Amino acid sequence: MEARARQGILGDDMKNEREQIVEMLKKAYFMELETVISYITNSVNLDGIRAREVAESLEKDVQEELGHAQQFANRIKELYGVVPGSEQFAAEQSYLQPPDQQTDLVHVIKGVIAAETGAIEHYNAIIEFTDERDPVTNDMVIAILADEEGHRRLFEGFLREVETV
Amino acid sequence: MEARARQGILGDDMKNEREQIVEMLKKAYFMELETVISYITNSVNLDGIRAREVAESLEKDVQEELGHAQQFANRIKELYGVVPGSEQFAAEQSYLQPPDQQTDLVHVIKGVIAAETGAIEHYNAIIEFTDERDPVTNDMVIAILADEEGHRRLFEGFLREVETV
Amino acid sequence: MEARARQGILGDDMKNEREQIVEMLKKAYFMELETVISYITNSVNLDGIRAREVAESLEKDVQEELGHAQQFANRIKELYGVVPGSEQFAAEQSYLQPPDQQTDLVHVIKGVIAAETGAIEHYNAIIEFTDERDPVTNDMVIAILADEEGHRRLFEGFLREVETV
Amino acid sequence: MEARARQGILGDDMKNEREQIVEMLKKAYFMELETVISYITNSVNLDGIRAREVAESLEKDVQEELGHAQQFANRIKELYGVVPGSEQFAAEQSYLQPPDQQTDLVHVIKGVIAAETGAIEHYNAIIEFTDERDPVTNDMVIAILADEEGHRRLFEGFLREVETV
Amino acid sequence: MEARARQGILGDDMKNEREQIVEMLKKAYFMELETVISYITNSVNLDGIRAREVAESLEKDVQEELGHAQQFANRIKELYGVVPGSEQFAAEQSYLQPPDQQTDLVHVIKGVIAAETGAIEHYNAIIEFTDERDPVTNDMVIAILADEEGHRRLFEGFLREVETV
Amino acid sequence: MEARARQGILGDDMKNEREQIVEMLKKAYFMELETVISYITNSVNLDGIRAREVAESLEKDVQEELGHAQQFANRIKELYGVVPGSEQFAAEQSYLQPPDQQTDLVHVIKGVIAAETGAIEHYNAIIEFTDERDPVTNDMVIAILADEEGHRRLFEGFLREVETV
Amino acid sequence: MEARARQGILGDDMKNEREQIVEMLKKAYFMELETVISYITNSVNLDGIRAREVAESLEKDVQEELGHAQQFANRIKELYGVVPGSEQFAAEQSYLQPPDQQTDLVHVIKGVIAAETGAIEHYNAIIEFTDERDPVTNDMVIAILADEEGHRRLFEGFLREVETV
Amino acid sequence: MEARARQGILGDDMKNEREQIVEMLKKAYFMELETVISYITNSVNLDGIRAREVAESLEKDVQEELGHAQQFANRIKELYGVVPGSEQFAAEQSYLQPPDQQTDLVHVIKGVIAAETGAIEHYNAIIEFTDERDPVTNDMVIAILADEEGHRRLFEGFLREVETV
Amino acid sequence: MEARARQGILGDDMKNEREQIVEMLKKAYFMELETVISYITNSVNLDGIRAREVAESLEKDVQEELGHAQQFANRIKELYGVVPGSEQFAAEQSYLQPPDQQTDLVHVIKGVIAAETGAIEHYNAIIEFTDERDPVTNDMVIAILADEEGHRRLFEGFLREVETV
Amino acid sequence: MEARARQGILGDDMKNEREQIVEMLKKAYFMELETVISYITNSVNLDGIRAREVAESLEKDVQEELGHAQQFANRIKELYGVVPGSEQFAAEQSYLQPPDQQTDLVHVIKGVIAAETGAIEHYNAIIEFTDERDPVTNDMVIAILADEEGHRRLFEGFLREVETV
Amino acid sequence: MEARARQGILGDDMKNEREQIVEMLKKAYFMELETVISYITNSVNLDGIRAREVAESLEKDVQEELGHAQQFANRIKELYGVVPGSEQFAAEQSYLQPPDQQTDLVHVIKGVIAAETGAIEHYNAIIEFTDERDPVTNDMVIAILADEEGHRRLFEGFLREVETV
Amino acid sequence: MEARARQGILGDDMKNEREQIVEMLKKAYFMELETVISYITNSVNLDGIRAREVAESLEKDVQEELGHAQQFANRIKELYGVVPGSEQFAAEQSYLQPPDQQTDLVHVIKGVIAAETGAIEHYNAIIEFTDERDPVTNDMVIAILADEEGHRRLFEGFLREVETV
Repeated sequence: MEARARQGILGDDMKNEREQIVEMLKKAYFMELETVISYITNSVNLDGIRAREVAESLEKDVQEELGHAQQFANRIKELYGVVPGSEQFAAEQSYLQPPDQQTDLVHVIKGVIAAETGAIEHYNAIIEFTDERDPVTNDMVIAILADEEGHRRLFEGFLREVETV
Repeated sequence: MEARARQGILGDDMKNEREQIVEMLKKAYFMELETVISYITNSVNLDGIRAREVAESLEKDVQEELGHAQQFANRIKELYGVVPGSEQFAAEQSYLQPPDQQTDLVHVIKGVIAAETGAIEHYNAIIEFTDERDPVTNDMVIAILADEEGHRRLFEGFLREVETV
Repeated sequence: MEARARQGILGDDMKNEREQIVEMLKKAYFMELETVISYITNSVNLDGIRAREVAESLEKDVQEELGHAQQFANRIKELYGVVPGSEQFAAEQSYLQPPDQQTDLVHVIKGVIAAETGAIEHYNAIIEFTDERDPVTNDMVIAILADEEGHRRLFEGFLREVETV
Repeated sequence: MEARARQGILGDDMKNEREQIVEMLKKAYFMELETVISYITNSVNLDGIRAREVAESLEKDVQEELGHAQQFANRIKELYGVVPGSEQFAAEQSYLQPPDQQTDLVHVIKGVIAAETGAIEHYNAIIEFTDERDPVTNDMVIAILADEEGHRRLFEGFLREVETV
Repeated sequence: MEARARQGILGDDMKNEREQIVEMLKKAYFMELETVISYITNSVNLDGIRAREVAESLEKDVQEELGHAQQFANRIKELYGVVPGSEQFAAEQSYLQPPDQQTDLVHVIKGVIAAETGAIEHYNAIIEFTDERDPVTNDMVIAILADEEGHRRLFEGFLREVETV
Repeated sequence: MEARARQGILGDDMKNEREQIVEMLKKAYFMELETVISYITNSVNLDGIRAREVAESLEKDVQEELGHAQQFANRIKELYGVVPGSEQFAAEQSYLQPPDQQTDLVHVIKGVIAAETGAIEHYNAIIEFTDERDPVTNDMVIAILADEEGHRRLFEGFLREVETV
Repeated sequence: MEARARQGILGDDMKNEREQIVEMLKKAYFMELETVISYITNSVNLDGIRAREVAESLEKDVQEELGHAQQFANRIKELYGVVPGSEQFAAEQSYLQPPDQQTDLVHVIKGVIAAETGAIEHYNAIIEFTDERDPVTNDMVIAILADEEGHRRLFEGFLREVETV
Repeated sequence: MEARARQGILGDDMKNEREQIVEMLKKAYFMELETVISYITNSVNLDGIRAREVAESLEKDVQEELGHAQQFANRIKELYGVVPGSEQFAAEQSYLQPPDQQTDLVHVIKGVIAAETGAIEHYNAIIEFTDERDPVTNDMVIAILADEEGHRRLFEGFLREVETV
Repeated sequence: MEARARQGILGDDMKNEREQIVEMLKKAYFMELETVISYITNSVNLDGIRAREVAESLEKDVQEELGHAQQFANRIKELYGVVPGSEQFAAEQSYLQPPDQQTDLVHVIKGVIAAETGAIEHYNAIIEFTDERDPVTNDMVIAILADEEGHRRLFEGFLREVETV
Repeated sequence: MEARARQGILGDDMKNEREQIVEMLKKAYFMELETVISYITNSVNLDGIRAREVAESLEKDVQEELGHAQQFANRIKELYGVVPGSEQFAAEQSYLQPPDQQTDLVHVIKGVIAAETGAIEHYNAIIEFTDERDPVTNDMVIAILADEEGHRRLFEGFLREVETV
Repeated sequence: MEARARQGILGDDMKNEREQIVEMLKKAYFMELETVISYITNSVNLDGIRAREVAESLEKDVQEELGHAQQFANRIKELYGVVPGSEQFAAEQSYLQPPDQQTDLVHVIKGVIAAETGAIEHYNAIIEFTDERDPVTNDMVIAILADEEGHRRLFEGFLREVETV
Repeated sequence: MEARARQGILGDDMKNEREQIVEMLKKAYFMELETVISYITNSVNLDGIRAREVAESLEKDVQEELGHAQQFANRIKELYGVVPGSEQFAAEQSYLQPPDQQTDLVHVIKGVIAAETGAIEHYNAIIEFTDERDPVTNDMVIAILADEEGHRRLFEGFLREVETV
């Protein structure tokens, strides 16, 4: 155990784990970037007064999610990985494409919940894998998870109201 | 002429031109978003002291280009268009994919010049088309063009030095 | 052409055009000032939660529109005109008088759209007239037009929702 | 009269009045503290988009009401009283306990109006009592009353809309 | 007395007084708005070096007077009144219309003194009426009166010099 | 293990643990709120020069502890709990009630140490319980624990001096 | 009554009262200026750790008291008085001259209490005199009185501790 | 037309026009730099109270004009020109040399008007030449022209007063 | 020489010189304090537009001169002197007492020049005395002298204009 | 387990572990302090343009590393340890002594990598030891480790380039 | 000696020395202004990555050197001199004219060193001359010399590297 | 004399003096760095309320002393010296090692006075040596000496009180 502590996740003995983490982080990197795109698109498209509240929430998140993407990129680099280029980006958030009616709030709210749920699952997996193996990545992803959990909860509250009315 | 001035590009008589402009802006929207991705990727990947200067320049541009994307999205909305979703995004900047060696500065510099050249060409086309038709879009794109011209010139200077040495 | 360029719109040869522009700017000056009054009045009068969003939007615009009025006043002065006094002010925004019910959002939203439409038409006329004749006024009014177009679009979105529900 | 002016409310001749004011301020102190608790609780519990507007209004008030509590505490001290401890706190805002449904806006809005009404009544009484007797307390409570009146008016407007729909 | 204190000016028993105050505040609201217009107009029109000092003073007051107008509007609302619309605005400051010569400082200085004198008289009346009846309005208007008294005194000093020379 | 990671503490399989955490957080929420009250009360009541240092330390903590309370409230919400209302508040800090002599520093210092000790014990329990179960709560409470440990240590130092002299 | 309200304290009919107020303000002006001098002198002279707390409190008050002096000067001017020159200054704070020992805290604390007591008495007299006569001066002096009362209370607390030990 | 739009003014086909623009910008560059020198010199030399107003106006412009010079330099660079060195600087503002009497305001005011007139003429020429050819330069120079027009108008107002008295 | 350098002006061997410097600093301390009083008095009393420029200059200096006074006080303390109390203050600026006419600018300008001249002479004497003896005081007073020289020069310029007209 | 949680690392039952942690923190404290010295020394000594980038990176780290040292010192205190004095400091970074040539970048870069590697190893050991034992120290050191890992990675990138060329 | 100290360099007895200093300051004034021009020119012209570091250093100095020029101008005025006009400007920095190749770093670095050396020599001469004669100018020029010495040293370091490679 | 002035302390003729100054600055550099260490150590270790005042004073000085160290390092560089590395650091402040009792204020206060006395002596020596030889170093060290003198005086005041009680 002593030996293991020496360089931690950056030690030669941890090469395999490190590469696995890098792969997980690459996926996270593109998830955040697609969220950036989806949130700009939807925050601008939405029409209506109630939509203002939702749109402003998304606009504010654009910067936050971009920050997450940059954190993932930097950690990939620190773990001796290579940040992937735009050609490896593949859209997956079918649920966040513009709806037919730009006043269709429910569509957007459900889309955000779906996106956040995907992120929460992937980040829980990273946290589980890095626990005891790579405390720095572990800590960083817990902080990001906290943001996503809070964000999903907010939109679940939105949904509850919208579906009631 | 009087009649035409009344509502300008937002008038019913300008519907066709408006839709053409919207199409041009959608393309511009995705160009800027891909640039955001490429600049994060490359600014993080680059190794080396001289690369620091380049990386910092790219990092700073990430915010600027994201701002451009948001301006394009807002203008699409104002012209009664719908901002496209992430599924319509298709990577085109083959020249900005990560190089084999993360110290390969020339690869990145040339990639940036190529990306900016593409933007300059497309924005000149928008400016020419909107001239006298849509002064607000025209003005907005001229301001963005100014940024891109300055940026390309900077990287041409970088290239000149790197190729000399 | 050489001759014409020398002093531009401030040259003696442009006296007639200059006076025409001054008249257009005087009208714009009072349009903005009435909008200042109407927006304070309506932002304060509106009752209700959804109205909050609208009222806050109007409050924020009060400063913006006041700024426009000051820009118009300054440009009148620069073109050797005299800014008119309060006795020449005549209210025209019949559609922005306080409604019977202070929760009547639709009334206010439609009033704002009407006010912005009036401004958009007048500013398009100024832009058309000053094009090639007075680039400084032209540029200034395009920037102001951009604000008004964005603002009307926002309220059209509000209207769409309110009328749907 | 001369004699009375000398030390004002802090003079020995005013001991009785001073002690009466201190008692009134103690009550006000706990009213504000309970409001702090109730507003945190309700601002967090509320679900929904429209609730966002209400929740944000409450969140912002938390700081304001805490400031009021601190002003009351300081004035108690200056009038030679002792600020009471937490054991003397007794909850009274039965109308601001969490509702059964966290989307029940009407419950919260009515609760806020009830709380503000209680405060307005108590502060009017302090103002009346301190008038001509203790101008510093008088002035301080008028300023706090202004906040509460404005706040209640806002929520009355909310209620009007919510009950209409 | 106890009874009266309960809700203060917002109580049902004070309805008549409240309506009288609202009428006084409406007049004050339009006085401040006309001052905003007159000060923009005159601050821009004035020519000359000494006029700079006067113009800058007026420019700075534009924001202050606008703030007063917004305070009056909000208080009207809180007292259950309706803020009047632009059609009820009627210019009264004949003494602040643009002079024949834009270097005629005396005309403007006298106009400002006349406008401030009108405000001081009206605000003294409101203060007298609200004293003991509505301490919140009373306090607010005293603070505004302080601004106007200071401002008039400054211009009286200007006049004294200008008339001496 | 894979299954467990998917939604983490927010997954259906974690309902029991989640509810246990919510109960622990409710207790923490009221502990922090009582501390807010006690610290305002004591910071204002204390007399004397040396007491200034202590009072200023408590004043500064008021904001910090209020922030903790808000963090606990938000986390309760995110874990699908309901933040409790003021009627469920029951004072427990008998050791922080105002002393007989307002210069009795030792009383206050010991009270603060007792309050912080209570918090440290409860937060250690939460940390132990959430470890591996709910990393977001775990991380949040560790950060709060750090504040409380530092704070208690400071007051232990105060006590040491005061008891020596 | 109507007649009286017209110009308030600035009306011709109030000349006598106005001159009395001016005399009271001149006295207040010099009281504040002497306090400025005494507080600089004593804040610098004091030696010792506990003295630090006192000295810092005095240093901070220097700016506050200077501000009071400027407020008094401006009000004298507004009431058509003439601010007196330095030759009319006569020191009265015998109790705030430097003590024999620069560690003699009690001397300084008692001196500050004496100075604040003098101010409190004089300001109470001004408040009583201006009540109903000159609301602007009245309001201004109440605000200044609040500062002085708070300040004396703080030093009374200091004295209590110092005399106990 | 398509072809022309591609690279705009930076295309090979625009080499001649580009070089002409560069020459015009070089001239503008030195005009602004000489203005920087003249304004420092004159703002410091002027004696007198009225001169204060003028001197402060010039001081503030020093930064503005320096900024213009830097904009011209950057644009020369972007258009593939070389910014000229100090040896190519030749003074031309004979009308802004220090007067015999340092209180001779008229001399300085006329000098500033002459300098601004020269700039206005040259910038109008650039605007005319770049119109439709180089929108980025066009836009930049219009913005600078706006500054110069406003500045000259201010000094014409100064002159009017000074010559009247 | 070695010996002398050891503790510099704070050494026992320098006691006589130190006490002489302290005396000079005490005089400077009161000069600055009287200037503070004179500048407040005169900046408020002056009437007129041109006077605005002078009054604003004096107002700004109030803070600067107060800062000088505090520097002198601190240095007295560091040199083991005692800062004198208000009873030792004796007014000397007969030339800065309020003039008969509050528009008498020449009186005030000459008074300021006289005050600054007195300061310049005294500070030159301190600089000469402390040279090579006490570099810290020397440096501090040179910096203060620079302020006073600049200030006098400005008012000499004012005088020149005022006497010419 | 319950028992253990009560006071955590601050409990009596954890005395041994606590003392072991204190020893590890003392070592860390001096490592950071030596790094502060080495980075100032090397950032100033380095000559050359490329060295600028390195020197600026070191300069910025000086503050960061000083902050780490202060965090370690505070934690030692909180764990009832005594922060060691300067006499116990012993230099260990032989690899960061000034090189023979002040342009020898490789020497400095390698030295920084060596220093960071030492820190990474020691901090990994602390993290391993405090895991489950002292979550506050654990969290604090993980955050510091993240800084050091990022910093080493940056300098590895520098080395890669420098060795290539 | 007494006599001499009275007015220092501003005394009548120092007229000759004062005029000599003024002449030295005029030369310094133009040296700084030419440096402003040269640094703008060269900072914009330079191409390349390494050049970025140099260009940024020059850009930052533009403001610093402009500030020096303004200090020299103000001091000339204070010493009763007249700041010279642009016609007396004669370029002397032949070594800072644009090189043939815009990537020729060595040319620019040597030019900067030459310019700074010239300034250092001239400022040493002023310091020597003003020593004991004019402490204010002396102090001001020492502070400016410090900037120039630091700047030259930086570029000597640049040169050392560039010549090595 | 002319010859000597040319390059001042940076001239070839001053090589010997320059090297002597560099040696003095190296010693000063390490004195400041040890003070940084000692002040962190002692500010953290001290227990007690009165100790708070002392500890806060030391904490604030940490940044100031670090700044001094960086100034010394930069000046060494400018004088063509090499800043020494950490291996040449030798602790000398035996009087600032942690005391046996962490509440032993007298020990720390005396230690600080001893450290400041050492600095004052060394800086007086540098000032004496650089006088007329190197004005830039001379000025820089006088400014640092001013800090140290003020700091020692403060702690002498602390000692006086502590020893009295």
